[in-house]
Amino acid sequence: MRVLSGIQPTGRPHWGNFFGAIRQYIDLQEENDGYYFIADLHALTTVRDPELLRGYVLDAALDLLALGLDPAKATMFVQSEVPEVSELNWLLLSGAPMGLLERCHAYKEKKDKGIAANAGLFTYPVLMSADILAYDSEIVPVGEDQVQHIEVCRDLAGSFNHSFGETFVLPKAKTLDVGAKVPGTDGQKMSKSYDNTLPLFGEVKKIRKQIMRITTDSRPMEDAKEPEGDHLYDLYRLFADDESIAEMAAMYRRGGFGYGEVKKAVAEASETFFADARQKRTELENNLDYVHQTLRDGAEQARSVAGEVLSRAQKACGIR
Amino acid sequence: MRVLSGIQPTGRPHWGNFFGAIRQYIDLQEENDGYYFIADLHALTTVRDPELLRGYVLDAALDLLALGLDPAKATMFVQSEVPEVSELNWLLLSGAPMGLLERCHAYKEKKDKGIAANAGLFTYPVLMSADILAYDSEIVPVGEDQVQHIEVCRDLAGSFNHSFGETFVLPKAKTLDVGAKVPGTDGQKMSKSYDNTLPLFGEVKKIRKQIMRITTDSRPMEDAKEPEGDHLYDLYRLFADDESIAEMAAMYRRGGFGYGEVKKAVAEASETFFADARQKRTELENNLDYVHQTLRDGAEQARSVAGEVLSRAQKACGIR
Repeated sequence: MRVLSGIQPTGRPHWGNFFGAIRQYIDLQEENDGYYFIADLHALTTVRDPELLRGYVLDAALDLLALGLDPAKATMFVQSEVPEVSELNWLLLSGAPMGLLERCHAYKEKKDKGIAANAGLFTYPVLMSADILAYDSEIVPVGEDQVQHIEVCRDLAGSFNHSFGETFVLPKAKTLDVGAKVPGTDGQKMSKSYDNTLPLFGEVKKIRKQIMRITTDSRPMEDAKEPEGDHLYDLYRLFADDESIAEMAAMYRRGGFGYGEVKKAVAEASETFFADARQKRTELENNLDYVHQTLRDGAEQARSVAGEVLSRAQKACGIR
Repeated sequence: MRVLSGIQPTGRPHWGNFFGAIRQYIDLQEENDGYYFIADLHALTTVRDPELLRGYVLDAALDLLALGLDPAKATMFVQSEVPEVSELNWLLLSGAPMGLLERCHAYKEKKDKGIAANAGLFTYPVLMSADILAYDSEIVPVGEDQVQHIEVCRDLAGSFNHSFGETFVLPKAKTLDVGAKVPGTDGQKMSKSYDNTLPLFGEVKKIRKQIMRITTDSRPMEDAKEPEGDHLYDLYRLFADDESIAEMAAMYRRGGFGYGEVKKAVAEASETFFADARQKRTELENNLDYVHQTLRDGAEQARSVAGEVLSRAQKACGIR
């Protein structure tokens, strides 16, 4: 199956991103024909600083490769390197009902949060549709909040096919598993908008400090505690093996430990967990030629597919 | 000066189009570096029939060449042949305030007329801006109804330049002269929306019939009549030389003539007026290779300019 996944280069990924999304869609490269793009055109609606954007795009490529995206198995590229997507964007826009876009929750929520209402955010689902349709994508792994956008894509593609004959493949959303709880430093769900995130990469010492400052309750050390539902325990569980997890649970139930110990265990387990990726990332940073070449190869492959789809769409609607 | 003009391929041009616009912007090729594009991407918002659209695009090229557009002096091309415009469209969309587009009269009027509210019509001024900015256009000849869109273009370009440094040339609107009155077959202003048009090209016999059916008043033949303000006289004036116009005015003032005579005079004068263009058009129809080659050459020239502008814009905002 052709699987498409877009990564917004709008900041450094955190543990929540990794367990909630990145790991899951990278895993899809094993059984599928994975297309992974770094969505710089989408990022442009919010990142209005060229240096920052260029940095984020490179970081996203480094992160993906470090975390296991394998260019021998999957295609990785930067969105704007495929002009066909911008061309498809207009073909879809020209037939997109305003009501369809006005009903999108994501736009309404952003507006409600006070983000300036702009036409890029408003037509975002159309560009996203162009991305999806350009590669004849069959499966699009998304979070719950993006399921509606896949419906928009199916609507636009279906209506184009209806008007002009079979042109686009209708994609299916694959909702990402939100099974693993990833609490942030304040115990709430880890999320950029709560400012409670722990980064995947970055200075180990600094991350350790952040871990040591995770909010805890003030029950006496001696008390036995229930591990289930405890956010430190939840974090530990993400990284440790079954045996260590069982030991940690036993320690909670025995009591007589400090949260500092647990935090240290979380820090160590997470460091071990990400050690290979971290080393890989350093290697890649020292071999940027390889990274750029990988992106160029990916773009070439992506353009060869998108070019065919665009040509099909252009002929269908009469602009060729 | 670089002058840009876009022609909507949405139907055959009529006398009103010619005197009110086409003739005026073709004249601009003499003293300027004229870029004339056939706006197939814009047309797509209303023409949803591929055969029809392809026909309209070719017709537009034939019309322009027949009416005097000279490929040795100006650049003529089809909008969609320049992918850079679609790419610029997104760069501009990503920073376009919703309010700016919501305030556009043309969109509101189309909606009020019952045309389905679609995102293509809504973001039309942004694509138009991309067209204008892609060629560093300095002058854009437009009708009164399009002046606001040039203001939108200046706003978007100005705000991009402000955010990312000097990138785009700010264009100026050149309002087309509406001096010449061109009444339609019912005496009102000639306009597609009144269904009262007389086509530039088409079967002579059929056009003559349409002219003979132009609405007139029922005053007796004998009465002397004032030519000024009479719509048949106004039509005649478009085509005849000064001497013939003076004779016609004298005939009106004398009285004792039938409107049929005037209509015949209008038909003959218009046939003579368009005779060369009509012959040229027939020649071009028999030499479509030349027309297609002209469009290809035009697109190549247009792309070489648009490519530079796009690259400038991409670097400025950080997607390169």
